[in-house]
Amino acid sequence: MDAVTDRAPKQDRSRATRLRILEAAVACLAERGWSGSTLAAVSARAGVSRGAAQHHFPTREELFTAAIAHVAEQWLAAVRDRAAALPREGPDRTFAVVDMLVAVHTGPLFRAALHLWVTAAEEEALRPRVRSLESRIGREAHRLAVEFLGADESVPGVRETVQATLDMARGLGLANLLTDDSARRARVVRRWARILDATLYGAQGGGH
Amino acid sequence: MDAVTDRAPKQDRSRATRLRILEAAVACLAERGWSGSTLAAVSARAGVSRGAAQHHFPTREELFTAAIAHVAEQWLAAVRDRAAALPREGPDRTFAVVDMLVAVHTGPLFRAALHLWVTAAEEEALRPRVRSLESRIGREAHRLAVEFLGADESVPGVRETVQATLDMARGLGLANLLTDDSARRARVVRRWARILDATLYGAQGGGH
Repeated sequence: MDAVTDRAPKQDRSRATRLRILEAAVACLAERGWSGSTLAAVSARAGVSRGAAQHHFPTREELFTAAIAHVAEQWLAAVRDRAAALPREGPDRTFAVVDMLVAVHTGPLFRAALHLWVTAAEEEALRPRVRSLESRIGREAHRLAVEFLGADESVPGVRETVQATLDMARGLGLANLLTDDSARRARVVRRWARILDATLYGAQGGGH
Repeated sequence: MDAVTDRAPKQDRSRATRLRILEAAVACLAERGWSGSTLAAVSARAGVSRGAAQHHFPTREELFTAAIAHVAEQWLAAVRDRAAALPREGPDRTFAVVDMLVAVHTGPLFRAALHLWVTAAEEEALRPRVRSLESRIGREAHRLAVEFLGADESVPGVRETVQATLDMARGLGLANLLTDDSARRARVVRRWARILDATLYGAQGGGH
């Protein structure tokens, strides 16, 4: 019996350590890029030994793809929570959805992901993992955008309009990498929300 | 007299070497990223000695910002040439302009620039140079987009619509980094061109 009751807290501790390492990895990648994100740097930041980090993640590739996947899932969950508080319909909702999608692409998760994507373009060992991670996150982001916008993808052009919105959000994230682009970004978001609203729902829209 | 006549070919040779180094630098950065783009790798690719490369560009930072600036200028010149062949007006012209802007963001220049931008986010020594280079290229790309679209920026919202187009182009470039995204991209470009056309020129557009 003792062995059984002891196991649960030990598993909890192990899970908590794993989470701490994952979060440290994303923060490290966002701030210092791939070259500054060694296993040693991440372990130090998480306050665990290198051995403990390696026990959870034998390779750097495993650590970083797991880290982005973990934070992306956290983000998707947070987005679902926040969606309940959005305006129910109309232009205010369209603006709120676009604003939320763009905000996600300008935070530390996107920054970390960007470093991982760009590194994967040069590192064979990383590429297949990151490619499948990217497509998984991309599909889910698209699905959520469609749901939040109440977009009807059976109407010709609607799918591409939603994709264009996510592509623009990604481009805005890139524009924010070296400079604080928030003032310009706010104007672009406002403008795009109006165009999107007219395109998806307006009588004048090209979509339906 | 001999000294004078000798100088011109020598300057030509020097200029040709400089160009070869710049082009090798961009190709190297696009294919192998920052970590694979040492001065030695670039010199070897350009077929010049390391010493010759260093004579032209004392530091790696100088070499790569000069390389991106050079290729960006070449690109801007090529775009101006191609613009003469675009359809004169109407939806075909809007599509051709969007298609051209997006094509630029999915080629080797964008790929090289992306590596430089992301590296600059972690490397202090690179950041101020790359930031000013980015804003210079960005301004010029915007100016050309406005000119080619015949967009009237005195109309509220038009400036942001053009910016959104360039942000989307940048996001499409990023989406193309790890996978061949060309089929999806072609559909998004077609769709975006229609929306842009309706917004900028259509009676139904939100712009005017």
